[in-house]
Order: sequence, then structure tokens, then C-alpha cells
Amino acid sequence: MAQRATIILSEENIGEIAAAVGLDTLMDETIARLRHALTLFGNGEVEIQPRTGFVYETPEMGLIEFMPAYRRDQNVALKVVGYHPGNPFNRGMPTVMATNSLYDVRDGHLIAVVDGVFATAVRTGASSAVASKLLAHPESKTLGLIGAGAMAVTQAHALSRMYDFDAVLVHDIDPTVEATFAKRVAALGITPTIASKERVLAESDIICVATSIGLDAGPVVHAGGMKPHVHINAVGADTPRKYELSTQLLKSSFLVPDYLEQALNEGECQQLTEEEYGCIGPELHKIVKAPQDYAHYQMKPTIFDSTGVSLADQIMTEVLIDQAQALGLGQHILIEAGCDDPMNPYGFSNFTHGLHVVESAAPDRSIKSA
Amino acid sequence: MAQRATIILSEENIGEIAAAVGLDTLMDETIARLRHALTLFGNGEVEIQPRTGFVYETPEMGLIEFMPAYRRDQNVALKVVGYHPGNPFNRGMPTVMATNSLYDVRDGHLIAVVDGVFATAVRTGASSAVASKLLAHPESKTLGLIGAGAMAVTQAHALSRMYDFDAVLVHDIDPTVEATFAKRVAALGITPTIASKERVLAESDIICVATSIGLDAGPVVHAGGMKPHVHINAVGADTPRKYELSTQLLKSSFLVPDYLEQALNEGECQQLTEEEYGCIGPELHKIVKAPQDYAHYQMKPTIFDSTGVSLADQIMTEVLIDQAQALGLGQHILIEAGCDDPMNPYGFSNFTHGLHVVESAAPDRSIKSA
Repeated sequence: MAQRATIILSEENIGEIAAAVGLDTLMDETIARLRHALTLFGNGEVEIQPRTGFVYETPEMGLIEFMPAYRRDQNVALKVVGYHPGNPFNRGMPTVMATNSLYDVRDGHLIAVVDGVFATAVRTGASSAVASKLLAHPESKTLGLIGAGAMAVTQAHALSRMYDFDAVLVHDIDPTVEATFAKRVAALGITPTIASKERVLAESDIICVATSIGLDAGPVVHAGGMKPHVHINAVGADTPRKYELSTQLLKSSFLVPDYLEQALNEGECQQLTEEEYGCIGPELHKIVKAPQDYAHYQMKPTIFDSTGVSLADQIMTEVLIDQAQALGLGQHILIEAGCDDPMNPYGFSNFTHGLHVVESAAPDRSIKSA
Repeated sequence: MAQRATIILSEENIGEIAAAVGLDTLMDETIARLRHALTLFGNGEVEIQPRTGFVYETPEMGLIEFMPAYRRDQNVALKVVGYHPGNPFNRGMPTVMATNSLYDVRDGHLIAVVDGVFATAVRTGASSAVASKLLAHPESKTLGLIGAGAMAVTQAHALSRMYDFDAVLVHDIDPTVEATFAKRVAALGITPTIASKERVLAESDIICVATSIGLDAGPVVHAGGMKPHVHINAVGADTPRKYELSTQLLKSSFLVPDYLEQALNEGECQQLTEEEYGCIGPELHKIVKAPQDYAHYQMKPTIFDSTGVSLADQIMTEVLIDQAQALGLGQHILIEAGCDDPMNPYGFSNFTHGLHVVESAAPDRSIKSA
């Protein structure tokens, strides 16, 4: 028991899981587990804390944040996520870089470290799928995407698992990004149509907004010109001073944050003054727990203010670890030192050999039976 | 650039570093780098945030906390630390389990994951050494240890690097722990003497208190019966409702927290009422910056309220990574997925082979030159 390895999943392992299980199954499982976890949220089984972190302007604008979640008697999950909008253009890396870790609440041991880039994209899609299923028109036939970057891929994928769309309309201010979108979603069976922003807004039943709009440069979408039952997943507002929807649009819709405290800080809700907080509806988990109470909103304009919740990262991490275990994937590395003798931080075995002080510093397990 | 590996140091690597470099050199380097970093603290070069986390009573009393530190233009360091006092007795594991991670502020990449158990013990010793050098009697000849667990090993080690002690007195309420202490520090050239708590207090110039006293069960040390110039490193109070020194002792000494916000929450200072905050002296970094202004306290009773600061973990992590790089140690694993195409979270290369959709989902780097 004293020596416990940490499971490290490589990018290659994630690819192996995706290939073995299939992206559709992974997405479906994530959506189902997330919806279930939201029914537990707030009863002591599952706890989360708002993300904290560091925002900086040098060497480029960026931030690194910590997103913790706790599942009673099981684990603490932590996503460490970076948002660096210069990444794709300056160094060929994703805007959102992230890793997820799980810790055992029995003893503090680091159970696993896994990718959080693929995972963030999948769980962000899954979150929009859960919200849309509850708030969007049940006969939604057109999906609209404003912003065609990495997040749009999994938004399109997740929503396509819930609805049988006739059309997927996509718009991006960057023609290069817009043009490559079709290639990126072809393997998912999605055939998007490039459209103007106005057309996306006018024709879509469900709209996912996921842009890299600059600080203080929003909003991207204003009120008007949309279907009376439109449901918007506002995915890209996840940073103070970054927002995508106009306040008039927020105030004229049923506005559902994923996590109010965080949404007021970094989501669309950050734009509202305290006097305007009355226009904010319940958090998503409340709707998951009593969907029938909110079904009538499916015919009205609704917004999911998706700042990204650590609970979804916890679930995604558990999904990946479970699949890795089932497939026998991942490296097992002893990382935590000093477990040979819990009372001696200098007592790791190969060190004692190295210094030839075996007798004096040898692991002493007598403490265990004390 | 797009594909960047994460360095994973194993426990074995830590042992190899300790054996190659020597524990004395590692400790000396950590003390020197910590003292230097404290001179930068507060000028924007280095930022820290108070730890946050989850405290729970099931399945056993424990907590898992996150300790972040930021170094401008370089990295964000995060220690995730568990405190589970049942570990040594119930499962042969250290009370303090921890891992340290470093993230690149340029792009959010996870640079490294390394042990935090050995590291926490070393940096906690180093912190006491920095504080003692500034606040303890310069001719200190007797070191006293109250609590002879894992932390006592590195307290004794670090202080022995700063002072030429005639005697090291040790006391623990658990005779088994007390009895094994000599064996655990023999390789460090330290020959301790078991003593009553009263004798430790009466004869020591510097006292390190590092116990696992239960919540609401303190204090362990009361005012009186100590030398007029005694310096106490209060190491074990790092949790709300856990404290080791009496308020009378705090109020009759020059009281120096490592990090006030944290000390008020979990350190000895948590015991003080707001009306008593006036008895709290400056944070350690202020004394490091102007040692001559505080030199006269070396002749008076002083207390270092050491809650443990993420800055020290950042330094320790940097020391270990630097040494590992110099020695060519550690495994390099690509963890973050989706870096083949920053706009496609499903675009990792082995997956596209797996699903035979090479054409549609192949990495597309055109975005890089956009």
C-alpha cells in the first residue's frame, strides 16, 4: 500500500481510447455521466469551487487557472487550464491547453494525470448538449456555429448526438478557420455550410457561440434577427472582460448559468450590474433536477452561459481513466517520494544505496504497526 | 513546437538526484534560492495566492489543497498537497502527500510533474532556516524539536546547515516515533538526544514545533520556561482548528507569519481575535529585505508562523527540475492531446490512423501561417 503509482495517459493513449471506443460512444457516455452528476450536485456528494488563477499580459496575454471538484469518499479532480489566444498563430498549439489530475481522498495520492485539451473540448460539447436538450426546441433542425475553432468541433459533435439536424451553418471571421471546419468535422458525419453571421443567427434553432473575441472587444451577437425559440450556448466567455452576447440579448432571454459564482466573474453574466441580476435564471443543475418545470422555456429564447465547470472535467477524467484501465493503457510511475518510511522524507530506497548509509537510513516500517 | 513533452520525475529520480548532488547541497541551494525569491516577493516578479481546497471527515479526516505561485514570464507552479494524519498508521504512507507541477506562462503547457513529499519536507526545513537565520540568536547552540515525525528530519537538517549545534534535543509523545528519530537523521551527521518537552523548551535556543496535534486539541507549547531569546519555528499549524502555540506565547513574542492571509486562516495567527492582530509582526519577506532593521529581535523571543508558502514549493520544484535536466533524468511524455492541429481536438495522429479517416481528419497546419 505504501508505494502507489500514478497513471500517466499520453496523447497517444487518448488516441487509442478514441479509436477503440469511438468518439460517439465517448461523447454519449460523457453527456450521460455529466447529466447524472448534475443531479447529485449540491447534496454533499459533489462539490466544486470557482476557478482561481493568474492572468497576465506578458510575454503574451494569457491566463492559467485551477478548477477543482470533489466527489465524496472518492476523489478530488483538478483541471489546470491555460487560455492563450496567441497559441494557434504563434506556435501551432491549441488556445486552450489543459491537463486533468485525480487525487485519492483517502490518502492524498495522485491517482492520474491525463490530457485536458481533448477532454475540455469534449466536456464543453457535452455541457452544451445537456443544456440544449433541456432548453432548446425539441424539433431543432438547424445548428448554427459562430466561431469555427477547436470548440466548434465538439459543439457540433455533441449537439449532433442529441438532434437530427438538417443543416449545420458555420461562421468565423477568419476565412482560413472557416474553410477548414468542414474537413475537421467530416469524420463525425457532419457536413457544414459556411454562412454569414446574419444567416446563422436567422436560421438556427440552436446556436453555439465560441469565439476568441478579445478582452473588452465583445459582444459578438446582439439581440434581434433570431428565431423566437432560439437556444444559444455561450461557450467562449470564460475570462473577465471577455463576453460574446449583448446585455440586451441576455435580458430578453431565459438565462441559465452553469455556475453562478463563476458566471458573474467570467461568463456572460459578468456584464450585468447587480441591479440586473434579477434576469439571471437558475443554474443548470436545477433544471436537470426538475426538467418538467422548465420545459415551457423550450419555446422561448434561452441562453446557456457556459463558463466551464470543474465537475464536467472530473467526469471526463473519470471516463478517460476508466477506458484506459479497461484497455490496459497508460504508464504507471511512482512519483511521490518518501513512501518507504512515512516518517523519513530522506528514506527512499535507491538513495540509501547511493550513499551507502543503508543501516542508518534504511526504511523502517515499525511505525506502521505502532 | 506544437508537440511538447511533459517531464515526469519518478521517486527513483529524486533518489538519484539526492545521491548525485548530496542532500546538503540540495538543502543549501534551496535555502539560498528561497531567500533570494523572498527579496523579489511583492514587486510583481513573483506572486502567490492563498491555498484553497477541500476538507473532509470521510472516509477519514483529511484535506487536499492547491498552492499556486507565479513567476513573471516564466512559470506557474502548483503544489497539490494532502494532509491525512491517519496515513502513517493506517496505510504506511506519509501524512503529507504532495506533487508539484510547473506550467509555462507562454502557452499553458505542463512542463513537469514531480514529487512533492520529499520536496515539501525540504522546503519546509529551508523556510525555517531562512527565518531562524534572521530571528534566532546568532550563537544558537541547542536545537529543540517538538514532534519527531517526517518534518523534524528536515527541520534538523536545514537548521544544522545554518548553525553548529552542540545539542539537538527531541521530544515526541509517541515513544516509537521518538525512538526512531536518531536513525533517521544519523546519515545527516546529527546525533539527537531524547528529552522531556520541558527540557527541550528550557534548553533550546531554536525550537521547531512540528506535531500532528488534532483539530481543537492544541496548543502543544505554552508560554514560559524558555530562554529569553528563544526562536520558535511553528511548523505544524497548517490547517484551520490546528495550532501548536498558546495565544499568550504568541502575544509575548515577535510574531512573523510567512504569509499573513494564510496564517490568519490556518496558522498560529488563526487563534487571534481581530483586536489582537496588532501583535502580528511583518511577513518574513519584509525581514529578508531589511534584515538589519530586525536584528535586535535576535535577542528577544521570536516566532515564525510557518504555514507553508507556494513560493517555496515553486523554488523546490525548479531546483529538482534543474538537477534532473543536468543529470539527464526523468521521462518525457506527450500528455496534452490535440496539438497536431490546434483547431481540431479530434486531430491526433494515431487516432486518424485508427479510424482510417486520414483524409478528412488529418492534421492541418495551414492555420499556423494564417
